[in-house]
Amino acid sequence: MKVKIINIGDELLIGQVVNTNAARMSQLLTEAGMEVDSVETIGDDGSAIENTLSNALASADAVLVTGGLGPTKDDITKNVLCRMFDSELVESEVALDNVKRIFAARGYELTPVNRAQALVPRCCKVLNNDLGTAPCMWFERDGRVTVSLPGVPFEMEWLMKNRVIPALREHFNTGTIINKNILVQGIGESFLSDLIEPWETSLPANVKLAYLPVAGMVKLRLTARMQGNADTTDINSLLPGLYALAGKHIVGEDCETMEELVARAMTSRHLTLATAESCTGGAIAQRLTALAGASEYFRGGVVAYSNDVKINMLGVSTDTLAAHGAVSEETVREMAEGARTRLGADYAVATSGVAGPSGGTPEKPVGTVWTAIAGPDGTIAKLLHYGDRRQQTIDRTCNQVLADIVRRVAL
Amino acid sequence: MKVKIINIGDELLIGQVVNTNAARMSQLLTEAGMEVDSVETIGDDGSAIENTLSNALASADAVLVTGGLGPTKDDITKNVLCRMFDSELVESEVALDNVKRIFAARGYELTPVNRAQALVPRCCKVLNNDLGTAPCMWFERDGRVTVSLPGVPFEMEWLMKNRVIPALREHFNTGTIINKNILVQGIGESFLSDLIEPWETSLPANVKLAYLPVAGMVKLRLTARMQGNADTTDINSLLPGLYALAGKHIVGEDCETMEELVARAMTSRHLTLATAESCTGGAIAQRLTALAGASEYFRGGVVAYSNDVKINMLGVSTDTLAAHGAVSEETVREMAEGARTRLGADYAVATSGVAGPSGGTPEKPVGTVWTAIAGPDGTIAKLLHYGDRRQQTIDRTCNQVLADIVRRVAL
Repeated sequence: MKVKIINIGDELLIGQVVNTNAARMSQLLTEAGMEVDSVETIGDDGSAIENTLSNALASADAVLVTGGLGPTKDDITKNVLCRMFDSELVESEVALDNVKRIFAARGYELTPVNRAQALVPRCCKVLNNDLGTAPCMWFERDGRVTVSLPGVPFEMEWLMKNRVIPALREHFNTGTIINKNILVQGIGESFLSDLIEPWETSLPANVKLAYLPVAGMVKLRLTARMQGNADTTDINSLLPGLYALAGKHIVGEDCETMEELVARAMTSRHLTLATAESCTGGAIAQRLTALAGASEYFRGGVVAYSNDVKINMLGVSTDTLAAHGAVSEETVREMAEGARTRLGADYAVATSGVAGPSGGTPEKPVGTVWTAIAGPDGTIAKLLHYGDRRQQTIDRTCNQVLADIVRRVAL
Repeated sequence: MKVKIINIGDELLIGQVVNTNAARMSQLLTEAGMEVDSVETIGDDGSAIENTLSNALASADAVLVTGGLGPTKDDITKNVLCRMFDSELVESEVALDNVKRIFAARGYELTPVNRAQALVPRCCKVLNNDLGTAPCMWFERDGRVTVSLPGVPFEMEWLMKNRVIPALREHFNTGTIINKNILVQGIGESFLSDLIEPWETSLPANVKLAYLPVAGMVKLRLTARMQGNADTTDINSLLPGLYALAGKHIVGEDCETMEELVARAMTSRHLTLATAESCTGGAIAQRLTALAGASEYFRGGVVAYSNDVKINMLGVSTDTLAAHGAVSEETVREMAEGARTRLGADYAVATSGVAGPSGGTPEKPVGTVWTAIAGPDGTIAKLLHYGDRRQQTIDRTCNQVLADIVRRVAL
C-alpha cells in the first residue's frame, strides 16, 4: 500500500520551521511496513490544499494531511475536506467532549472559538486526540483513506502511533510488522555491508534490512512482515548470524540512540557517570540529560574549554599541559580521572580535540580528537581522526564516546 | 516569481534523514524575496522525478531540484533531465576541471566513476560547485528555469548563496532585497504583535515584516524590496519606531540565534563567561561552543546534575540545599557565584529547575526554573514558569538565559 503525506503550513515554506513531521511520520509508517511515496509541503491556502489532495488521492491508497486545523483563522483544511467529500460541518459529540475535557483539566473557560474546534465534516469519523483540542478526522472513499491530523508535533506523533497506524493497518489488512533495531558503531556503512553480506543474503524473504547511518554510527533495522500470529522470537532467531560476523561492532539493540543504550547500561548496573568535555563543549552531557531519568546515573560534568578550567576544576597538571598540550593522551587521561574523582562517579569520560575550523597544526590537524574513559579498572584513551567540519566532528566524537561507555560497562 | 523545490532521496521517505535542505533553501529564497510555492519530496525513482518535475514546471517560474547526483548508482536525475530537455550527456570541461581540482587537493587518483560526474546534459549551463564534485546544472526553457543541485547540505547551501540565488535574481530581474533581523525575547508573539501594531502599519509598502517564534524568543524579519541602488540605511531608519514601542524586549540585531549575540557581546568587550547548569544539562555550553571561536570568551562550565556536584564543584553550601532545595533562588545564586569564582570568569550563569516529566511538587511543579547571572556588579536571580514538556523547558530556559547575559553586559 502506498501513502502520500501532505504537510500544510506557511511557516514551512519560508523555512522558519524544519518539517520534522514529515520525517517522523515517514519513520513510523515505514516501521509499520507502509511505503511513503511522496511528501508535499504547501502553504495555508485553500486551492493549493484542494489541488494537492485531489492529485494525491488519484494515485495513493492513503493520504495523510497535517496542519491547518487551528482554533483561529486557519481552519482552511476542514472547509476543503467538506467540499471535496460533498459534506457539511457539524458539531461532533466525541470532539466536543474532548475539547471540554481538555479545557476543564486546564481550568479554562470554553470559548466559542474553541467550541468550533469540534466542528467536523459530517462524513468523517473522529479519531480521538487525547493530547489536544484539534480533532483527527478519517475519511473513506472508494476504499482509499484520507486522514487529517493537527500539525503540532507531539499531538501528531501520539495520534499516528495510537490511532492512525492501527486504523490503517486494520483497513488495509497489512498483517503484522515487527521491527528490530541494532546499533553498530566504529565501522563505515560500506564496510559493514561487505562484512555482513553473507548473512544479509540469507535472510528470509519476509525480512528486509535497512542501513541508517548517522554521525559515525549505523542503525541496522530489520523489518519482518508476518501474516497471522507472530512474535519477536522469529526475528531474534536471525541475530546470531549477524553477531558472528559483526559482533564486535554491535553496541546494542532495541533503541534509537546511543544515549539510550548508555542510560540502560548504567542504570541496570547501578553505576554512575561523569563527563569532562573540551571539544564536545557539553554536547555529551546535553544528550544524556535530554532523556528523562538521567539523574538516576548521571552525576554531572565539567565543560573544560580553557586550560585553567582543566587545571582548576579537573586537576590536570600544568606540567602535562605544558609538555603535551591540551589535545593529547596525557591531558585527556587526567581529565577523565579528575572528573571521576571530583564528581564522585564510577566512570568518567573525557574529550579533547581540534574541532576547527582554526587551531590545527601539522602534528594535530583539525579533526584530531583524544578521548578517555576512566573507571574502577583504570583509564583507556583513544585517538580519533575526523575531517574539517566542526559539527560533524562533535557529533561523531559524541557517538564514539557513548558507544565506548556501553562497551566498557555492558559488553 | 514562484519557486518550487523538489528534494530527491529514498532516505527522506523512510524518515531516516530530516529534510533540512527544504527549510534552508526556503529560508534563503524567502530572504532573497522569492516565494516558495511548494516543496515535494520523492524517492530515487526516474519516473517519479520526471512526473514531479513536469508538473512543477507547468506552474512555477523556477524549479530547484536537489539530490540524485552521486558518483555511483544514483545518477538518475541527470538522465531524467536529458530526456526532459531533449538533450544528451556530454563531458563538461568546467565540471571536469572542478572534479580534477578536488581530487588533486585530496591527493586521490581520478577514477572513471568520478570522471563521469563531469557528464552533464549538453543544453545546460554548469554553475561551478567549489565544495564538491557533483555539478550544479542550470536549464532554461520558455523563460522558466530548472536548477539541479547536489543534496549534500553544505554544498547545496554554498551553491544557493553563491551561484543559484544570484543567477535567479539576474534572470528574473527581481531587484535588490534587504533583510534585517531583530531578536526579541521575553514577550509572546501575539503580545508583541499588539504592542508594535502602530509601527507595523506605518511601514512603507515595499517593506514586509515576518514574525518567526522559536522557543520563547521571536525573530522579527524586515524584508525590503528595492529597485535600483539601495543600501541598508533605508531599513535602519525604520528601527527607532520599533525600539520606541518594544525596545525593552529587543536583545539584538543582525543575527539568527541568541548565542551569536552572546559571542558578539562578550568578545567585543573582552569579557569571559562560565556556566553552571542543572536542568539545562549542558545545553547552554553546547550551544555556545557549537559556534567556532567560542574559546575567545567561554572558559567552561559545570553540569551540576546531582547535589554532590553542586556542593563539591561549585561550592553550594549543604545548608542552602537542605533549607531551600536544589530548585531555589538561594541555590542558583550560589551556583552562579561558585562558577564565576572557580572557573575564573567575568560572568557566570546558572540554571536549576524541574524539567520533568517527574520531580514536580505542589510548591515547585514541573516547569519551575530558577536562573541566575553572577558578575562583577553582583548576582541577579530570576524565577521562570514553563509547561510540562521537557525539551521545550530546556530550550526556553537556554534562550532566556542567553538573552539575559546580553542584556546584562551589552544593553
